[in-house]
Amino acid sequence: MRAAVMRNKEIVTDTLADPVPGSGEVLVKTLACGICGSDLHMLRHADKMMESMRETGAPFVPNLRADVVMGHEFCAEIVDFGPNTLKQIPVGSRVVSMPISFRGGRPQAVGYSDEVPGGYGELMVLTEPLLLEVPNGLATEHAATTEPIAVGVHAVARANLTPRDAALVVGCGPVGLAVIAGLRLAGVETIVAADYSPMRRRLAQHMGAHVIVDPNEQRPIDAWREVAGAKAAVLFECVGVPGVIDELMRSAPPQSRIVVAGVCMENDSIRPIFGINKELNVQFVLGYTPDEFARTLRALAEGEVDVAPMVTGKTGVEGVGEAFRTLANPEAHAKILVEPWRS
Amino acid sequence: MRAAVMRNKEIVTDTLADPVPGSGEVLVKTLACGICGSDLHMLRHADKMMESMRETGAPFVPNLRADVVMGHEFCAEIVDFGPNTLKQIPVGSRVVSMPISFRGGRPQAVGYSDEVPGGYGELMVLTEPLLLEVPNGLATEHAATTEPIAVGVHAVARANLTPRDAALVVGCGPVGLAVIAGLRLAGVETIVAADYSPMRRRLAQHMGAHVIVDPNEQRPIDAWREVAGAKAAVLFECVGVPGVIDELMRSAPPQSRIVVAGVCMENDSIRPIFGINKELNVQFVLGYTPDEFARTLRALAEGEVDVAPMVTGKTGVEGVGEAFRTLANPEAHAKILVEPWRS
Repeated sequence: MRAAVMRNKEIVTDTLADPVPGSGEVLVKTLACGICGSDLHMLRHADKMMESMRETGAPFVPNLRADVVMGHEFCAEIVDFGPNTLKQIPVGSRVVSMPISFRGGRPQAVGYSDEVPGGYGELMVLTEPLLLEVPNGLATEHAATTEPIAVGVHAVARANLTPRDAALVVGCGPVGLAVIAGLRLAGVETIVAADYSPMRRRLAQHMGAHVIVDPNEQRPIDAWREVAGAKAAVLFECVGVPGVIDELMRSAPPQSRIVVAGVCMENDSIRPIFGINKELNVQFVLGYTPDEFARTLRALAEGEVDVAPMVTGKTGVEGVGEAFRTLANPEAHAKILVEPWRS
Repeated sequence: MRAAVMRNKEIVTDTLADPVPGSGEVLVKTLACGICGSDLHMLRHADKMMESMRETGAPFVPNLRADVVMGHEFCAEIVDFGPNTLKQIPVGSRVVSMPISFRGGRPQAVGYSDEVPGGYGELMVLTEPLLLEVPNGLATEHAATTEPIAVGVHAVARANLTPRDAALVVGCGPVGLAVIAGLRLAGVETIVAADYSPMRRRLAQHMGAHVIVDPNEQRPIDAWREVAGAKAAVLFECVGVPGVIDELMRSAPPQSRIVVAGVCMENDSIRPIFGINKELNVQFVLGYTPDEFARTLRALAEGEVDVAPMVTGKTGVEGVGEAFRTLANPEAHAKILVEPWRS
C-alpha cells in the first residue's frame, strides 16, 4: 500500500507491505484521516515525547527507529476480517474507532506505533470490538472528526460544568474548536473564545462561540467579564505553548478552574503565588472515554454540532509532508484530511 | 506597648503607642502568638509579596514603609471594649479570631497591616463579631494553633477526599503537620508523610501520620504505593520551594490530585506534559472559611487532635528576631510561640 511514513524524523511517501489482520482484527481501507497537532509535535519533538512517555510509565512507547505511519483521526471502510472475528458489521460498511490496537498483547496507539499503521496509509488493521458503524448519512469527512471532537467533549466533561459557570476558550485551533463544540453540546450558555488569528476567530464563531475576542484588541478575561456577570470562570487552555498557563493564572478571577487541553511539550514557567492567592484549580486533560467517543459520533450524526467549518483542506498521501508544513500557519487551515485513495 | 516590629525589612523591638479600640472593636492582651512561615517569607520577599497581591487584586496591600507588627496566629484576653460593641464575651475571657480587621471600611489582614498591630505586640484590637471564646480547659498555647491548624483543615476540605483516597504529605513543617492534623480529623485511613528532617519526621508521627518516609532512603511515592493498594493518590505539597510541584507531577500516579498548600513565592518550572499524560488535577489552596476556623477550635478543645508536639519553643518580644533566624533550620523547631508579656 501507499503511505506517508515518519522515517528519520521526516515524512516520506513510500510503498509498504499491506497490513494483515490478526486475531480479532479487521482490515479496512482508510477513507479519510485528519492531521492532528500531536502528529506535528511528534515529528518535531519525538525524542522528548518518548522520554516523557517513558518517565510517566505509558503502557506503550513506539520504536522510532522503525517506520511509523501516523494518523489516528480516521473514518474507514471494512474490507476483510481476520480470525476470531464476529463480523457483525458487514464488509463495505464505514466505521470509526478509538485508535487503539491490542496487537502483541498490550494496548498500542494506532498512529503512534511501529507495528500497526495509522490513517496516513491506504490500509489499516483495526480492533473489531472497538468499531462503531458510521450512521447513515453522516459524511465521511465529518465522521473522521469524531476523534478530535471527542477530545473537546472530554475536556468539557472533566470541567464538571454547572449552570453557574461561564467558559473562556483561549486558542481556537482544532483543540479549541473541539472544546467549543463540546461546550455547545453540553448546553453552556456563555462561551467566550479568543485567538490572534482572524481565520480561527471566524471558525470559532461558526462552531458556536457566543463572543469572539482578538487578544490584540481586548484581554480575553475582560471580554469574558463583560458577559459572564456573576458566573464562575472556567478557562480552557487550548494553545499548548509555554507561558499560557501562567498568563491564565495571572488573569483568572479568584476560584477559577483552568482546564489544560493544549499540549505543551516544553518546560513551562508558572508563578504558584497566583494560584495560591486565588485558590485556582488546574485540571490537565487528555483523550476521552469510550462512552465520550461513541456519544460524539452520535452527536455528529444527529447534527447537534456542525463540524463542516473545521475541515479546511484535503490531500492524498503524497501531500502529507507539505500539509504538515502548511499547518504551522494558523491562517491557512484548521483541519486537513488525508484521503489516501485520492489520486 | 512593647512589640517586635518589621521596619526597613528587619525585625526590631520597640515601644509603640497602645492601640485604641474603634467602633465594633475590642482591646485584647496578646497571650501567645505563633510565628508563621509566611512571616519569614514576608520579611525576606516583602516586595515580591506586595507585587503579587497587587497583580492578583488583593483587597488590601499594606504600606511597608510604615511599621508593621506581624503575628496572626494568636490567643488573647479581652481587656476593654470600643464603641458599638455587644460585650457578649466578658473582660478577662480568652479568645481566638480569624486575623481580619475592618478598620478603614475595608478588610485588612491582622499581622500584615500598618494600621492595626498583630500578635507580636502586647496589645491588639480585634473585631468583636469574629471573636471565638476559648473553651475552658484548652491551653492557651494550643488555642493559638487554631489558625495554622485551620489551614490544614481547609486544604483537606478542598481535596474533597473520599474513602477511596490515600494521602501523601510532602514536607512536614507547620503546614504539613497541619495537613496531617486535618487528615486525621477527616478520618483518612492512609496518611504517608515525607520530610528530610528527622525532627520533622518525629513530629509527623506524633501528629498521626501512619507511615513516615525519609526521601533520602525511599521515594515518597514508592512508600505511598506500598500501603495505598488500589486507592487514589492525593498528594499535599507542603514545602513551598521551586521544583516540588514538578517533582510531584513527575512521580504522581495517573489521575492523582495535587493540593498545593506550600507557599512558593518564586517563579517555578513545571513540565505540563506530565500533567497531560496523567490527567492530573492541581488545586492551589489558601486560608480557611469561618466555619473551618471555628470547627478547628472545637476539635482542639475536644482533644480530637493533639497539637502539643507542634509547639517547640517560646520567646518574649525581644526574641522574635532571633526566633525568625532559628526557624530557618528545620532541625531546631516547628512552631515558636511569642508570649509578649513574658519577661
